[in-house]
Amino acid sequence: MERLQNLLQQLDAAQVGARMFALMERLYPICRSITGQGVRQTLDILQESLPLVRSEVPTGTPAFDWTVPNEWTIRDAWIKDSSGVCIVDFKRSNLHVVSYSIPVHRRLGLRELKEHLHSDPEHPDWIPYRTSYYRETWGFCLAHQQLLSLQEGEYEVCIDADLRPGSLSYAECVIPGASPSEVLLFAHTCHPSLCNDNLSGVVLLAALGQYLRRSQLQWTYRLVFAPATIGSITWLSRNQGHLGQIKAGLIVSVAGDPGAITYKRSRHGNSLIDRAAANIVCQGEKPGTVLPFSPWGYDERQFCSPGINLPVGRITRSPNGAYPQYHTSADNLDLVQAEHLTDSLQRIMRILCVLESDRRYLNLSPFGEPQLGRRGLYQMMGGYTNIGALQHALLWVLNYSDGLHSLLDIAEASGMDFQTLLHAAELAEQSGLLSPGPLSLDLCTISGSELPTYGHTT
Amino acid sequence: MERLQNLLQQLDAAQVGARMFALMERLYPICRSITGQGVRQTLDILQESLPLVRSEVPTGTPAFDWTVPNEWTIRDAWIKDSSGVCIVDFKRSNLHVVSYSIPVHRRLGLRELKEHLHSDPEHPDWIPYRTSYYRETWGFCLAHQQLLSLQEGEYEVCIDADLRPGSLSYAECVIPGASPSEVLLFAHTCHPSLCNDNLSGVVLLAALGQYLRRSQLQWTYRLVFAPATIGSITWLSRNQGHLGQIKAGLIVSVAGDPGAITYKRSRHGNSLIDRAAANIVCQGEKPGTVLPFSPWGYDERQFCSPGINLPVGRITRSPNGAYPQYHTSADNLDLVQAEHLTDSLQRIMRILCVLESDRRYLNLSPFGEPQLGRRGLYQMMGGYTNIGALQHALLWVLNYSDGLHSLLDIAEASGMDFQTLLHAAELAEQSGLLSPGPLSLDLCTISGSELPTYGHTT
Amino acid sequence: MERLQNLLQQLDAAQVGARMFALMERLYPICRSITGQGVRQTLDILQESLPLVRSEVPTGTPAFDWTVPNEWTIRDAWIKDSSGVCIVDFKRSNLHVVSYSIPVHRRLGLRELKEHLHSDPEHPDWIPYRTSYYRETWGFCLAHQQLLSLQEGEYEVCIDADLRPGSLSYAECVIPGASPSEVLLFAHTCHPSLCNDNLSGVVLLAALGQYLRRSQLQWTYRLVFAPATIGSITWLSRNQGHLGQIKAGLIVSVAGDPGAITYKRSRHGNSLIDRAAANIVCQGEKPGTVLPFSPWGYDERQFCSPGINLPVGRITRSPNGAYPQYHTSADNLDLVQAEHLTDSLQRIMRILCVLESDRRYLNLSPFGEPQLGRRGLYQMMGGYTNIGALQHALLWVLNYSDGLHSLLDIAEASGMDFQTLLHAAELAEQSGLLSPGPLSLDLCTISGSELPTYGHTT
Repeated sequence: MERLQNLLQQLDAAQVGARMFALMERLYPICRSITGQGVRQTLDILQESLPLVRSEVPTGTPAFDWTVPNEWTIRDAWIKDSSGVCIVDFKRSNLHVVSYSIPVHRRLGLRELKEHLHSDPEHPDWIPYRTSYYRETWGFCLAHQQLLSLQEGEYEVCIDADLRPGSLSYAECVIPGASPSEVLLFAHTCHPSLCNDNLSGVVLLAALGQYLRRSQLQWTYRLVFAPATIGSITWLSRNQGHLGQIKAGLIVSVAGDPGAITYKRSRHGNSLIDRAAANIVCQGEKPGTVLPFSPWGYDERQFCSPGINLPVGRITRSPNGAYPQYHTSADNLDLVQAEHLTDSLQRIMRILCVLESDRRYLNLSPFGEPQLGRRGLYQMMGGYTNIGALQHALLWVLNYSDGLHSLLDIAEASGMDFQTLLHAAELAEQSGLLSPGPLSLDLCTISGSELPTYGHTT
Repeated sequence: MERLQNLLQQLDAAQVGARMFALMERLYPICRSITGQGVRQTLDILQESLPLVRSEVPTGTPAFDWTVPNEWTIRDAWIKDSSGVCIVDFKRSNLHVVSYSIPVHRRLGLRELKEHLHSDPEHPDWIPYRTSYYRETWGFCLAHQQLLSLQEGEYEVCIDADLRPGSLSYAECVIPGASPSEVLLFAHTCHPSLCNDNLSGVVLLAALGQYLRRSQLQWTYRLVFAPATIGSITWLSRNQGHLGQIKAGLIVSVAGDPGAITYKRSRHGNSLIDRAAANIVCQGEKPGTVLPFSPWGYDERQFCSPGINLPVGRITRSPNGAYPQYHTSADNLDLVQAEHLTDSLQRIMRILCVLESDRRYLNLSPFGEPQLGRRGLYQMMGGYTNIGALQHALLWVLNYSDGLHSLLDIAEASGMDFQTLLHAAELAEQSGLLSPGPLSLDLCTISGSELPTYGHTT
Repeated sequence: MERLQNLLQQLDAAQVGARMFALMERLYPICRSITGQGVRQTLDILQESLPLVRSEVPTGTPAFDWTVPNEWTIRDAWIKDSSGVCIVDFKRSNLHVVSYSIPVHRRLGLRELKEHLHSDPEHPDWIPYRTSYYRETWGFCLAHQQLLSLQEGEYEVCIDADLRPGSLSYAECVIPGASPSEVLLFAHTCHPSLCNDNLSGVVLLAALGQYLRRSQLQWTYRLVFAPATIGSITWLSRNQGHLGQIKAGLIVSVAGDPGAITYKRSRHGNSLIDRAAANIVCQGEKPGTVLPFSPWGYDERQFCSPGINLPVGRITRSPNGAYPQYHTSADNLDLVQAEHLTDSLQRIMRILCVLESDRRYLNLSPFGEPQLGRRGLYQMMGGYTNIGALQHALLWVLNYSDGLHSLLDIAEASGMDFQTLLHAAELAEQSGLLSPGPLSLDLCTISGSELPTYGHTT
């Protein structure tokens, strides 16, 4: 069992990227929705990599203001033209049928048919993704240029589907750490053949779970795979007594496109997960973006509803809706690339490493700088214009380790990399210069002006 | 009786603009000063539109550090050249005489005359506006190019004026609302034939008063028409016991030029009126400017003096002194336009609508999002990239209505239009999702990080 | 005895610049290090201008985590080539020998010699400055192009030096004021023939000390001339009981190059010295830069170590390491110019003037503006677009002198020059409009929104 940061350093980027991509290729053809067999097949496959605890919540179960809906079973769907040629076929793309369509089989003219057709004029080659979970209707989605090419005449439509009492399916994997305080990681599982949104999040969590299971962890990690909205609401409603244990969390989705990494803050705005993620996201070769909380997006809407208000942020690459292929057939295996999945995974692991190791230290030699040279911590020849990053990091952790500032505080104040500061702090601790405080997921921000007193100071 | 916001929505912009402009045309020829018959004539005309309570404060009355001065009566003033030709004539422009000039009638040479002449070399065609309220002297103002053309020789000057004990005149219109808490609206009335500064403010308040009288109001509105500086100081000194009722206020002046709208904060800086005005001023097609408080400008200097310190800000278009025609004969009926008066009026009404309706709501279904669809509050077909403004507004008010955030807080956090948020809140209230808190003019700012607890939360 | 601000206004810039430069020329040839005869010679010369209290701290004395080292005596050093020609000679530049080199006299080949040679490839004409205080070794520094020209063959090296028990030398000059609260001014004295770093700081403090001795001072000023790092640490360790007296301080170095003035904040970040220096540095014709605190630089590292944590900032022109000549033979009498030394001196004097006179005043006529005109404090003819700076300053000090805002607060809020505000406040005090509060070095920042109450206000 190693520390997570060691696993991160040793991570074989090409290998893990290929593994995540291969899993995504396997999950891509399945027709998922907020309930149904497709979700269960998906969870079956995930269970090959991770030990999952599965839940089936019956139709009709109340979940806060909602009720678990009927289960949707889809077997086939097609449109035939007047000559009997199948022009739209569910078997070619499961996006062709509006999710949760009621069964239908009849003949009708073009005008009436068009009332049930959905296309995207802005992207005339792509099939859009549409749903109708809570209004009983049926519909087909197709490329806009195909819609324009439809001739007058009689059509035959068939949706071979059921809407019947069944259950909503979700799965969890809890990976215990030294403390029962929990970090929640959530991916939604309700989208059919769409890769970035959100098979990317699903395969990333699966890979992350494998690393976490090999780590010696400080905190307990809970991975949840559930449908969006009704899934997170159902999970929350069944775990109310447990929510106090959750000290941090991330919604993971849209993790594989070429866009820069994006962190959306929790409703708390500046909780530990917010600060850790903002710090990590803004660093490195391709710095990302930090967005404020807003009540629109993915399942952070539920985890950050006012009565729940957990410190759960969201990691994506392009934000939801901000890439053209969003919710269309172009969100496919060409859009997502293994290298971006890997970069997202590494970013999240770096964020978790901050949670695992952020703490306050106390400088045991706080009067003037300690003489680092005789401890082998400082270059012995003086006068140079620059000193190295590690020596800067040593000076930062020694100066600010007054019992009030944590390593993350120091990373924010200095602009230095958290891992370098952690390395410096551990070297100083080994030299007897720093004494570590307890680990905690409740470290709050101390502003730079509220400073310490060791005795006489003003 | 309707809500002010309904009157605002139904307002006929062309009609109200024409009405304000016509009133300004009527007031323009009158020679006003800080006291005297011109002010009383002005108030007589305003009284045709609004019921005014008039006050006459006798010369010699102490007003804090000041004393009400003698009343100035001006009947005529002219300069004749050596051939008896009248070259400067008060009847052509009342700006020609320095306000509060003492009477004079004598002959004198050019050199001595020039000591009493005022011109503006930077704008050689315009007559500047000058005053000498507290130093007994006399003087004429004229276009700089006329001054340059004056020949050597003897001149005859005449100012037929009096400075005698009399009174300082001001007027008030109080429009009661459900609560005695007051919103003060102030326009200064002491300038002679100058349109933007400040007949624009005077006619705007007259029109606004008419709308307020037709409204069902939450707060009491007090409109004050008084001379600048000595007028506001006198009013304050006579109403000290009443100042605690004033919860917000606006100085209105320079309201008709083509410049963008400008709000200058009160000395409080971030009181409710400051936040409401800053929010409204920065929105819309032609966003305006928000200035910090400074102790230089119009009567906000008195309302925001340190011993008074009321939350009274200032609305102008171009700030005082920031347009070239300021305090010259070019501040006339050509500079001010009805459309700008109307825009200023609408902005101020929108600010008052915020005061009338800002409140906190409590989300009665705070655990996860409530299911808006079954209440008819949400589009039923899902998957789209964009939802409309009203649906965004619903999500914002539901998420932040935790009993701590008011609609204005939410407008600031979301960048959304206050009226849209109010509409969303009222829809949600009708659906039983929100419970309204009390209206108040004392709502303070809650920062986004100080968040609510409904129970278990961290 | 005059106020410091009067001396500043009367200062003859050319004369004081020439005097500082002449002193620098005299000190330049001396070979200084952290101990030794060169430091003592330097202090002897300074003592001609200022009464210094000298300290000699014996080798072996503990100083917090450090120990006073052996004293280094250098008499001569050279390298001769195989033909006996002296190619590197300490007498030509004392930078040629690595400071604290141990004695050596031997013959050796080029390869071994090169292990003891230091050059700077980026600046091939300049001799770099190197030290080895705490690792016993020897070395020479030379221009990189000379190093490249060295031929194979046998060389003779000689460093005629001692490392023996002796003492570390520092000096202080305390200039008493009305209060024992102290302002510390520190310059390091350990660099050999390097002008900007830090003979500039040494001669500036010498000149400043002369002005301070001629002033009627509110505070006590302590000038300290000591070696960097071990010197400030030693001083701190011997004055622990006294540190509570120090309410503000400046490290002065790199004060003579053409770069813009730079203030680096103390670890407190926003103490009085930080606010005063930031305000002064950002004003004037060539505005400078304000840097946040960082634990890397000059002796602020020690004064701002966490157990000491004094409000001591740093004034330089170019920051340390940020000019190419830093720690090379090009940091010479050509780099530093009298005019820059004078500008630095004037800036520091302006900062000290803020400390000497910042205070809160109470407006004794706070209800409306007082009538300034009858007190001769305001122009009597009205209507002008602009009023002068002094009249603006009067309005600012009157409005904000509510007992909570100091002149420096008002300077920050208004963007006006501190000296103009002080002048206005003193005029208003003479007119009985303001009552001065006590002087203090502990004035803290009151934000503009926490405002006063004289009675009823909201």
